[in-house]
Amino acid sequence: MKQYSQMNKDELNALKGELDGAFAKYKEAGRKLNMTRGVPSDEQLALCNELITCLSGEDYKAANGTDCRNYGGLDGIPEMKKIFADLLELTTDEVIVCGNSSLALMFDNVSVNVSHGVRDGKPWQSQGQVKFLCPSPGYDRHFTICNYFHIDMIPIPMGEDGPDMNEVERLVASDPMIKGIWCVPKFSNPTGIVYSEETVKRFAKLKPAAEDFRIYWDNAYAFHDLDGKQTSIPNIIRLCEEYGNPNMVYVFTSFSKVSFAGASVTCMASSKSNCDYIRKRLTAQTIGPDKLNQLRHARFFKDAKNVMAHMEKHAEILRPKFKLVSDTLNRELGGLGIAQWTEPKGGYFVSFDSLKGLAKRIVALCAEAGVALTPAGATYPNGNDPDDKNIRIAPTCPPLGELKDALDIFCVAVKLASAEKFLAS
Amino acid sequence: MKQYSQMNKDELNALKGELDGAFAKYKEAGRKLNMTRGVPSDEQLALCNELITCLSGEDYKAANGTDCRNYGGLDGIPEMKKIFADLLELTTDEVIVCGNSSLALMFDNVSVNVSHGVRDGKPWQSQGQVKFLCPSPGYDRHFTICNYFHIDMIPIPMGEDGPDMNEVERLVASDPMIKGIWCVPKFSNPTGIVYSEETVKRFAKLKPAAEDFRIYWDNAYAFHDLDGKQTSIPNIIRLCEEYGNPNMVYVFTSFSKVSFAGASVTCMASSKSNCDYIRKRLTAQTIGPDKLNQLRHARFFKDAKNVMAHMEKHAEILRPKFKLVSDTLNRELGGLGIAQWTEPKGGYFVSFDSLKGLAKRIVALCAEAGVALTPAGATYPNGNDPDDKNIRIAPTCPPLGELKDALDIFCVAVKLASAEKFLAS
Repeated sequence: MKQYSQMNKDELNALKGELDGAFAKYKEAGRKLNMTRGVPSDEQLALCNELITCLSGEDYKAANGTDCRNYGGLDGIPEMKKIFADLLELTTDEVIVCGNSSLALMFDNVSVNVSHGVRDGKPWQSQGQVKFLCPSPGYDRHFTICNYFHIDMIPIPMGEDGPDMNEVERLVASDPMIKGIWCVPKFSNPTGIVYSEETVKRFAKLKPAAEDFRIYWDNAYAFHDLDGKQTSIPNIIRLCEEYGNPNMVYVFTSFSKVSFAGASVTCMASSKSNCDYIRKRLTAQTIGPDKLNQLRHARFFKDAKNVMAHMEKHAEILRPKFKLVSDTLNRELGGLGIAQWTEPKGGYFVSFDSLKGLAKRIVALCAEAGVALTPAGATYPNGNDPDDKNIRIAPTCPPLGELKDALDIFCVAVKLASAEKFLAS
Repeated sequence: MKQYSQMNKDELNALKGELDGAFAKYKEAGRKLNMTRGVPSDEQLALCNELITCLSGEDYKAANGTDCRNYGGLDGIPEMKKIFADLLELTTDEVIVCGNSSLALMFDNVSVNVSHGVRDGKPWQSQGQVKFLCPSPGYDRHFTICNYFHIDMIPIPMGEDGPDMNEVERLVASDPMIKGIWCVPKFSNPTGIVYSEETVKRFAKLKPAAEDFRIYWDNAYAFHDLDGKQTSIPNIIRLCEEYGNPNMVYVFTSFSKVSFAGASVTCMASSKSNCDYIRKRLTAQTIGPDKLNQLRHARFFKDAKNVMAHMEKHAEILRPKFKLVSDTLNRELGGLGIAQWTEPKGGYFVSFDSLKGLAKRIVALCAEAGVALTPAGATYPNGNDPDDKNIRIAPTCPPLGELKDALDIFCVAVKLASAEKFLAS
């Protein structure tokens, strides 16, 4: 196992010859493999099939007597509020339970702050060019929301413990046009890291120049541990309260990867006071979420403890896939000095860094051989990875056999692109 | 039966004495009756209980192979697109099938035009003070959306055939800041009138000063005939095409009062070109609607014809209620010269006009006697009924017995307020 940087031209040429041969065979095979998005597998979805049938035709009343078939109840049925409140260690008046898409909640929340201001304050749009901090690599759909609302994005480096908090503190304190930051605090998309206690505390203690600065805390993988432990992060809402910033954070979470990504329930959480503002807006905006689907979820999951038990079943399915990624990358690329990657203990992704300038090439090579990956750069604001090195690997959806094939092709593509790079230098 | 205006003071005093007595008894009885909103009754909801259970745990695939449990499919499953397209006499690429609330679709659609402009044109908000035409009496929640977005509302008188089209044409042609109009073309809320063919054609032929003027065609009662006929109105999207305004109209409709108000599917429809713009926005906005609930609706209703057959069952339940309203008002108030009301052939409301200046008083009297009505004025922009005479009667939800009691109280309140008025004059 020789590092590529230690090889001479002859060795590199010989290596490239071998890799070209292997790659040609993969191309001929004409595979169609997909590792683009964080999508649950059939096997995971089947864990909840009972959710489809768990209501009888006479079971439509929520605990407070609400007929879930009829109008009424803008912020969720009591049973689902209780489950989310327990999961997030909050009170039921600090949560609002909604429909299928937590992305829609985030979009809406940004939209209203742009057009109407935070808590009836001055609309962001009438204050000048709004900026968001974007810990990167991060979730492309957060960046898409910023793009949609013409919000400038400032990338913040991600470390082992979360975003570079020195940088976050410095920027937030100095620039009143910085109005928000996107965070995926647990099993971050795509790096899989978990914010440390210290990081979460530093978020809660922020002293923003803008009084209408808000933390968008997308706890999308709040319950998505892989290793049988239940990693806990500090309660950001309580900490914000404690440090005198009671209304600074909006928390989002979702059952998209707990029950069904196509028929889920989602949750916004914040201070009661913030939730009251949101509830007021909802009266203008909607006649309410699908309450029967909320009731279905309440009947199927029963309580927060059962949700966590259910997540262990997901973990059982996902563990071999993440192990396969780790084993394959270690076996094929370990010690070659051409790549680094994360070994997440939860979430849906592995973050992979190639040598500088190779991510686009690797993704293109994979596409040639029939393996679809998230576009290189997607994990950075405006699709612009300054080092062109980050690739998000999404191993959850393909069956193990397909995942193996995709990873084998991926590793050959990485080696080939790396050999090309050294030969050209 | 003497008109109140023909009575002398003695007669009026005697009458008022009787009415005071009757009213005092109603107050003592301490009833709690609700005619505030257009809400389906238990009996109507029960028509669809099978919808709760119609999917088996293995039935989750749409016609195009989409797994409705998983991500994907932003604009609806093919089966539901087909049903809505057939109901609205459109093609499937002219409809977008969404989640539970069509109000949310309208809110969203206004929001994006305010913030981003129509079809990537200049945002409404950067053009000056936006105005909407508001045929009145109309639907309070439309007006709430305008209020939320600081849109000025210009009331337009409603006639037997729809809004006063001379006024609509004149205003729309002369003022480029008029960007929209709210229409409920069939069984209008609250008057129950149906736009005539001529009215619909004149809408399609409008020559707005603003190229980004849009008709918000809220066809909320598209399938909600009471009399066994299927009243048809011309296809506004086809007519707009024909008259050179292909992108001028957004159509909204909903199954809220077809299946479950609390777990429904809804639909936006427009030119394919407009729908393509909307689909593009949806990719930033949401991971998609609840597809399992769409599949449930597709399985339960099967096709457009069955939807219409199902609506006849609703009509059977609603007919006696609307008949009771009509019979009671005619019996108690007919010939007294103190009120006018509509006798709608569909929809959810009866529109009631008292003598000028009495609507608030009547609603207050009803409240004293335990009958909750929609607040007087709610059917006008900013809650301002210039004549203070319109009251929306919503007879669908209460069981017949309760409706009878509520109407009896209502009629006494109307008579009492009218007698007071003549005595004071």
